This record gives sequence, structure tokens and C-alpha cells, in this order.
Amino acid sequence: MIYDTAIIGSGPAGLSAAINLKLHNKEFIWFGGKNFSTKVEKSEKIANYPGLGMIAGKDLIAKFEAHREEMGIEITDQMVTAIMPGDEYYMLSAGQDVYMAKTLLLATGVAAGKGFGGEEEFLGRGISYCATCDGFLYKGKTIAVFCGDARFEHEVDYLAELADKVYLATSYKDVKLDKPNIEMLPKPIRKVSGAMKVNQIELTDGTQIDVDGVFCLRNSIAPTTLLSDLELDGVHIVVGRDMATNMPGCFAAGDCTGRPYQIAKSVGEGNIAAHSIIEYLAENK
Amino acid sequence: MIYDTAIIGSGPAGLSAAINLKLHNKEFIWFGGKNFSTKVEKSEKIANYPGLGMIAGKDLIAKFEAHREEMGIEITDQMVTAIMPGDEYYMLSAGQDVYMAKTLLLATGVAAGKGFGGEEEFLGRGISYCATCDGFLYKGKTIAVFCGDARFEHEVDYLAELADKVYLATSYKDVKLDKPNIEMLPKPIRKVSGAMKVNQIELTDGTQIDVDGVFCLRNSIAPTTLLSDLELDGVHIVVGRDMATNMPGCFAAGDCTGRPYQIAKSVGEGNIAAHSIIEYLAENK
Repeated sequence: MIYDTAIIGSGPAGLSAAINLKLHNKEFIWFGGKNFSTKVEKSEKIANYPGLGMIAGKDLIAKFEAHREEMGIEITDQMVTAIMPGDEYYMLSAGQDVYMAKTLLLATGVAAGKGFGGEEEFLGRGISYCATCDGFLYKGKTIAVFCGDARFEHEVDYLAELADKVYLATSYKDVKLDKPNIEMLPKPIRKVSGAMKVNQIELTDGTQIDVDGVFCLRNSIAPTTLLSDLELDGVHIVVGRDMATNMPGCFAAGDCTGRPYQIAKSVGEGNIAAHSIIEYLAENK
Repeated sequence: MIYDTAIIGSGPAGLSAAINLKLHNKEFIWFGGKNFSTKVEKSEKIANYPGLGMIAGKDLIAKFEAHREEMGIEITDQMVTAIMPGDEYYMLSAGQDVYMAKTLLLATGVAAGKGFGGEEEFLGRGISYCATCDGFLYKGKTIAVFCGDARFEHEVDYLAELADKVYLATSYKDVKLDKPNIEMLPKPIRKVSGAMKVNQIELTDGTQIDVDGVFCLRNSIAPTTLLSDLELDGVHIVVGRDMATNMPGCFAAGDCTGRPYQIAKSVGEGNIAAHSIIEYLAENK
């Protein structure tokens, strides 16, 4: 089937959009983590979401979850790793599946910079965002993995079953991985390099390590990695007041569109984006 | 004193801004009705304010009120009837008082059109927005009053004590006014006319009635009536993504900036506007 909309990201902006699209009986698929937003969840106290007084992040997440459930909306816990614009719809790769949608809502949060040096250059040539999709290519080989969230540890585990050797960098502590062929890197990865394909990583202390491939497992992918023609201003997606990006049928909402990084702003933009999408679908039947 | 900010309007946008300004220790005055928003209050069910599931408007208002009280924020229940831009601050007339503020947030809701025909033309010449301010001018005279909300009935009562005769038009039913000198008009007022001053109203059926003055008691005043140089697009205030209007230090948020008329959009824009105001104040010390 061709969905009316694919929402990418399950933070407050994605939720707000999903609720409105559901109320308008649109067929949509919503990609994201089932915990909504690690950033919200980890907030000790939130004071400025009007109507809820002082509330802990995890309690707000519980309210989001109750609202989602009350509306009967599903979240698809897959990572979208590539988007291809077509004439009438976008094609999205997620896991080993391909989805089609007439419109897109990017609610991916703010991407932490542009990734490693060389990352965009070697995309598809030894750089991968999806263990399930590309892991089999590295059977018996040596790989580096950047793991940006504990929720991706099962993917690292899976890669360690296939690969001979895994060099691991993480952005968090308390890593719960203990396969003997996993070696924690002493420093963060600064850049990747190679010729036709990636063949080396360099750490921030200058150490160079030969690898056959690099996996980047992050909560959010830089938007231009997903969709290379998207217009950015720094790390933010450029949108109008109707949350439309420069690409037809592609809208954005929440932290990915710029500051202030606030829950109220995100739900507001998700709401506006959903209404713009509904209008766009009506005009482009 | 000179306030950092004056917020005009106590709907969701005004509340969201007030909460954020309070958290940032700004000195602000917040004008509006203590019931927040009649529009929200009258909503039977609201389904798309993320985190609250399906909720009745009056219950959401109760949550807004609890949040306001928890934060220790006061609402000043006065109607701002005129704003004059100055070099370093804006001057606001409300009731019989004058206030000064370095920045403004217009969160006035969507004004129902531009008022009566001739209304802007005769402003200050027989057209008034404030019974307390101008009522004494009409002692023993004949006036027309448009009352847009039951919360203004005490002002109509007051005018009926002063004036000899009051022709009354309302935008709602169940009018609870019974002074013998108040006469309900059979049709809405279409326009006002006169020479130096207003001396006549015309109803939508063409009936003409001679009057000495006209009072317009509305929940929201058309923004250009408040601030004539404000740039509008139709009935909406033109703002950028930072919610800045064309006038320095003047921001707008909520329904007055355009569709969709949604609570989530309003709280989002109120949040953004507050952050823009905080930035503006820091840059213009």
C-alpha cells in the first residue's frame, strides 16, 4: 500500500502529528522508538508544558503513551535509514522493508552534528546505519560500531555474532555487552577514511585502526543523510510557518527545525505540520 | 515601573508564554480574562492536546488554572484598549491605568473580522472599547452597546446607569440584563456613521438609529485597532518563525497569527515567543 504519510520520529512532535492525522482518518505509518523520547524521559522536572504543572519526564512519557493507546495509534519500532523521493511518493528503507508514502513528516529531533568526518562521503561504501540490513556483508570481517543508545545494543550483539572483531565506541556509560570479540575503543571516532570503500577509522587521539566497515547506530540520523536534497540551516531543517520543507510533500516539526528545543514548541509544530499535510493531500489527490 | 513584557490575552498562547517568562524571572504583566479562554472552556471534547487524551474544555481550563497557580502567576483582568509605541517602551491603556513595557506579546485570539463598518474610522470619536474609561461622557445620552461576551454584562449595566437609553446587541443568547432603559436590537449592527463624531448606527436590515456613542465590548480587539502599524495578512498578524511582528519588540502567538486554530499550536507559539522575548531583552538592555 501507499501510505498518506510516513512520520519519522516519535518524540512530542511526531506524537502530536500522529494524533491529528488519526483524527482525520489518514493512513500513516509512524517510525520511532516506543519510549517516545529519551530526552523527555530523562528530564527530571518539566515545568513549562501548559496544563501539567511540574511533572517528571517519565510521567509525561506515561501520559503520552496513554494518549497514544487511547487513540489506537501504533508505533513501528524500525529505524528509517534511507529515503528516496519519487514522482508520486517517497520510498523509505527501514530494516529490510521498503515503505511508500505520499508525504513525509520529519520529526527526527536535533541531530548531533553531521556524524564522523567522511561519514556522508562513504555512505553506502562501508558506512551503514542498519545492522539487520547490512550485517551479513561483514561475516568474518573486522568492523567498527558507534552505538549511540543502549537500545541498539542488541544490534551490536548481532554484529558481533557475524563479524570476527568489533571495535566499539558508545556515547553513554554502563555498556552491557560482553562478547569476547568486542573491544571498547579508548577514544571517540573522529573520522573514517578509505578509497573505494572505508578501510580505516581514526580516533580523536590520532590512533588509526584498519576496518572493513563502520556501523553508526544512532537515535537520529542527520536529515541530509536521509534525504540529500533537503535544505538545511546549519543542523536544522529549513521550514516555513506551515512546516513545509523545500521538498514537495515533505514537512518537518520539532527540534529538527530549530530552537527553542521545547516540548510545547514540538507539539505545536507537529499539529501545524499535520494540518499542512492534510491540506497537501487534499490538493494533490 | 517599566515591565519587561506585557502579555495581552490569556488563552493557551498567553499562558505558555507567561510560564516561560516566569521561569526566566522576567517582570511581566499579563492582561486577560481569568477564565483563560471562552473558546477552550466551551469545547465539549478536546482530543489532540498531547498527553491529556480526551478531555473536556472546562477540565483543561482547570488544569491551566492549577498550573498558573502553582507558578504563582497573576492575571490582570483589564482590557487593553490602546497601545502607543515609544522609543524605548510601549505604553498601554487598560481601564483607567497606563502601563509601560519594553516588549509586547499579542496573544489576542483571532479577531472576528474588523469590527463594524466605520469602526476604525470613528475610533476616539464616539467609538469606545471601555465602559469604565469613557462611560461618564455619556451621562443622560443615548448609546449603542455591542456586548461580545457575558463577562462584559456588568459594564453594560454600568453604562445603563449613566446613559438615558442603551441599544444593546450581543453575540450570545441568555442575556441577563434587565434595566428598563436597555433595549435589545432586533438585528446585528452593520455599521456606524456620523460626521465629526458617530451619530448613527445601521443594522443589517437597514434600520438606522441615532445615537451619541457606541461601545464595543469584545473579547478581542482587532490587532490594528490596538497598534495601527502592525502588519496583517487578512485578519492575522504577520510573524516570522521566531514570532516577531514587523514592530520592534512586539511579538505575537496563537490564533491571532493564523490557522490552524489549535491549542497545541498556541502553546507552541507562546513558548517560542517567550524565548524570542528573552533573547530580545538580552540584546536590547
